[in-house]
Amino acid sequence: MTWTNILTDILQVAYPIIQAPMLGVSTPEMAAAVSNEGGLGSLPVGGLSPEVTKQLIRKTKNLTDKPFAVNLFAHEIPTYTKYDLEPMRKLLLQLANKRGYNLAEDDLTNVKFYNHLDQIDILTEEKISLVSFTFGCLDPKSIQTLKQNACTLIGTATCVQEALFLQQQDIDLIAVQGIEAGGHRGTFIEDMPLPQIGLFSLLPQVKRMVHIPCIAAGGINSAQTIKAAFELGASGVQIGTAFIGTNESVAITSYKNKVDVAKDTDTTLTKAFSGRWARGIKNEMMHEIEQAGIPIPPYPLQNGLTANLRKLAQQRNDSEYTSLWAGQSAGKTGFLETNEVFKDLVKQYERLYK
Amino acid sequence: MTWTNILTDILQVAYPIIQAPMLGVSTPEMAAAVSNEGGLGSLPVGGLSPEVTKQLIRKTKNLTDKPFAVNLFAHEIPTYTKYDLEPMRKLLLQLANKRGYNLAEDDLTNVKFYNHLDQIDILTEEKISLVSFTFGCLDPKSIQTLKQNACTLIGTATCVQEALFLQQQDIDLIAVQGIEAGGHRGTFIEDMPLPQIGLFSLLPQVKRMVHIPCIAAGGINSAQTIKAAFELGASGVQIGTAFIGTNESVAITSYKNKVDVAKDTDTTLTKAFSGRWARGIKNEMMHEIEQAGIPIPPYPLQNGLTANLRKLAQQRNDSEYTSLWAGQSAGKTGFLETNEVFKDLVKQYERLYK
Repeated sequence: MTWTNILTDILQVAYPIIQAPMLGVSTPEMAAAVSNEGGLGSLPVGGLSPEVTKQLIRKTKNLTDKPFAVNLFAHEIPTYTKYDLEPMRKLLLQLANKRGYNLAEDDLTNVKFYNHLDQIDILTEEKISLVSFTFGCLDPKSIQTLKQNACTLIGTATCVQEALFLQQQDIDLIAVQGIEAGGHRGTFIEDMPLPQIGLFSLLPQVKRMVHIPCIAAGGINSAQTIKAAFELGASGVQIGTAFIGTNESVAITSYKNKVDVAKDTDTTLTKAFSGRWARGIKNEMMHEIEQAGIPIPPYPLQNGLTANLRKLAQQRNDSEYTSLWAGQSAGKTGFLETNEVFKDLVKQYERLYK
Repeated sequence: MTWTNILTDILQVAYPIIQAPMLGVSTPEMAAAVSNEGGLGSLPVGGLSPEVTKQLIRKTKNLTDKPFAVNLFAHEIPTYTKYDLEPMRKLLLQLANKRGYNLAEDDLTNVKFYNHLDQIDILTEEKISLVSFTFGCLDPKSIQTLKQNACTLIGTATCVQEALFLQQQDIDLIAVQGIEAGGHRGTFIEDMPLPQIGLFSLLPQVKRMVHIPCIAAGGINSAQTIKAAFELGASGVQIGTAFIGTNESVAITSYKNKVDVAKDTDTTLTKAFSGRWARGIKNEMMHEIEQAGIPIPPYPLQNGLTANLRKLAQQRNDSEYTSLWAGQSAGKTGFLETNEVFKDLVKQYERLYK
């Protein structure tokens, strides 16, 4: 039996297994390792400058000749004044001080915000063939530009309505993100409460309503979960948390350790770190920001505000003051090479089902 | 190929498919129809008086010779004063008045509360062989009594810790309830935030930690979802929402209609109707109670307080003022005989997988 299906045909890979783009965790080395094994590596560049985007793409290309996806954030950048950010700025300075971090006053707002519009030219120049995105849908002009450059597009949906919208915009594939997934929710339809739909319910309903291939995301970490996703109609799977502990991950050691021992109830959804809903392991910074009762500025403003404090915490291996994104199936991720994690999944699957 | 497995052996049924106990929806006719087809029907009697419990059991026995489960609520009844209930009483009177319902002042609190302790004697007298329960674990004495009467016990868990507790208390089987499930959460460990774990993450983690057979609950409504649950380690499945629209269901017509057209994002978790977290389709009563800002008394107090208003609304087929429990995989349930829904699931499954 073979792994070949519509998704492997479209992606031009051997296995319909995608390493999830995890900004702050994934690296060119991780993406290349997965692609070199015949899966699809993902290089997250959401919100990065065009220069850094280019460097990371070049680095990945140096490490693999195989296809990999470049992952964008398709968000809008809200207008704001310094006044809007002041209460949160003050809170973060207090928290930094309490924790013993020396955060300069002006550290908090000297951040320039980018989105996908700043990166499309780089992607076409670099002849990127696979672009995935989240937090919204790319604008029609970007879609057109990328498609004219023979680019396959992968959107992210957290409910049927979003999946239908992506299909209508001529997106090729949909990553269907169940509530189990770690990191940021891809939700982009904002005039309703956050969809919190389990993959078991979401995937079959999306499949029933769209005709383009779907990729299951959230809770996938084993041969059995891959198989179950196929049964629910997925053409492939996206796996994130299982790669956090790898040597190619730049997650700090204390974060890797927490993911490795995480229980089913250890994660929660929070806006505390970035201003967008995301799933991570509970910690002190999350708690302090949430219970302060101060409005959390929207993404990417809050993300910019917390960036330097998180960076300082990472330098001290302090897992209480940085984001610990992880899905509901964290735990026992181990500390292996990325290619070992990938090969083990394939081997497990083939032993059970082929 | 055969459906026989450890669960069919234990339950003494042909198919490892359980009709979920849905108080206010399920009937003796529904439970008997499922059991007569070779599945396991469930008769919900949680919180009912011993007399009514006995009547319902007798009625079900008259309709089937096959095994069925009797479902209990294993909650404690909190102590309270009229004063504790006064703000909610007043709110409900206002809401009733606004909606044109004539709710007498004393209608709201003339409710006697029962729990499983009031029902164990009936179950043993009636020689019930299968008892499922939720909202907690039966007390050790009840467990002992039922086991001495050759009764198989099925507990409900919404996280690994609850599953381990049930196993430790010598419970035979665990219904593993994913966040997708409609109706009340079975959660009973109360010193942590409500577990909201998708079945895709929850089931494999429970399976890894317990050695007793597990039943997948939440989001199951098709051959594919049954198959996926088996792949994730379930020995059987529990299906609720798909039976709400049946002729044997006592859900009011407007409720059945809403379930039939429900979309993935139409349900939410609420404490508004009963004081316990439960998943249902959003409506006006839910909204009004939640946004009033008045503390919601714990189960079963709030359940008792809202009972008469819900009953009046049901008499008028008013879906805005009664609970509309449904899971995240509602929609397209149709209006068939219970045995047709059951047979169709089996037929679909056998066509695809046997």
